[in-house]
Amino acid sequence: MSTNIVWHQTSVTKQDRRERNSHHSAILWFTGLSGSGKSTVANAVSRRLFELGIQNYVLDGDNIRHGLNKDLGFSAADRTENIRRIGEVAKLFVDSGQFVLTAFISPFAEDRALVRRLVDEDEFIEIYVSCPLEECEKRDPKGLYEKARRGEIREFTGIDSPYEAPTAPELTIETDRYSVEECVEQVLAYLRERRMIPAAKAD
Amino acid sequence: MSTNIVWHQTSVTKQDRRERNSHHSAILWFTGLSGSGKSTVANAVSRRLFELGIQNYVLDGDNIRHGLNKDLGFSAADRTENIRRIGEVAKLFVDSGQFVLTAFISPFAEDRALVRRLVDEDEFIEIYVSCPLEECEKRDPKGLYEKARRGEIREFTGIDSPYEAPTAPELTIETDRYSVEECVEQVLAYLRERRMIPAAKAD
Repeated sequence: MSTNIVWHQTSVTKQDRRERNSHHSAILWFTGLSGSGKSTVANAVSRRLFELGIQNYVLDGDNIRHGLNKDLGFSAADRTENIRRIGEVAKLFVDSGQFVLTAFISPFAEDRALVRRLVDEDEFIEIYVSCPLEECEKRDPKGLYEKARRGEIREFTGIDSPYEAPTAPELTIETDRYSVEECVEQVLAYLRERRMIPAAKAD
Repeated sequence: MSTNIVWHQTSVTKQDRRERNSHHSAILWFTGLSGSGKSTVANAVSRRLFELGIQNYVLDGDNIRHGLNKDLGFSAADRTENIRRIGEVAKLFVDSGQFVLTAFISPFAEDRALVRRLVDEDEFIEIYVSCPLEECEKRDPKGLYEKARRGEIREFTGIDSPYEAPTAPELTIETDRYSVEECVEQVLAYLRERRMIPAAKAD
């Protein structure tokens, strides 16, 4: 009796979701040194987007390294695989109609380029969280620079492993010059300018 | 001058998102033989939820095997890793406030149990898509059973690899007895009964 069933797919598309949500969906890829403020700014942007009714989610070490990528170490191959998987997951979130904010050092330009190529041109926004190494080291919120200087951590970005700063990021925010609130406003202004989120209400 | 910046985190929580969305978030884990109708029913449920304004997303072979899990083959270890990663990604979607519908054969009870343990008790809804093997083989929408019978595919679930049917699924839907629309209604009724989505409007 099942032969009469029409087994067609009626998938909800990315476009359907964007229209429903009344906003675009894209990856906001925050990259920068440890201690530069990636996670702080990403979470503050997330909070602001949430308050504006914009669907969004943050991927960071807390929810990735202990979950999806807990099988990965810190070899060159594993670091690349780490970023690849984050990129693939971010792509799924974009497809689901959300903004996805990623906060990983992601020091290698080629790894970031790989993620950029996974999605459409208007779906990858590279945000360089710029902060001088000495300032990051002074902040050292997790005590990692101190450990790296003592040699307890090897291949630490900025100390004995390179950080390849973006050469043409969509946006650069300078956390040594601007407050978190100002940085958040710069990101929001960028998204409004590209009409990815609704214009600010005049209130 | 950055020393005055308060670098605190103000993460949006899962609870924040659920309250905003006015619905729960959970994994709807569809499991069943190839051809049982997992993907068809999952996509039809997704469409219905979308029409009800409920944030949701489908993970299936189309968006996982060619993306996140494209490095995995079909060995026992890779199959387990395939399901593990899908479970971890599904957990992220739940955290983001969405229902996530997964449509994978997922033949092994232990793999499904692993995913169940990743999330809270009210966040994993195992839906057994029940359909007799002979019916699935008759449908054979992708011609896979024919290939398996000819020996062109090895370790094909139901043919030369076991399918461990759920012993205590939250829900069983029988696609050989009910239409897609009826199956969708059974899933929706279940979600309403558990108050995971708003009650149906009397219209």
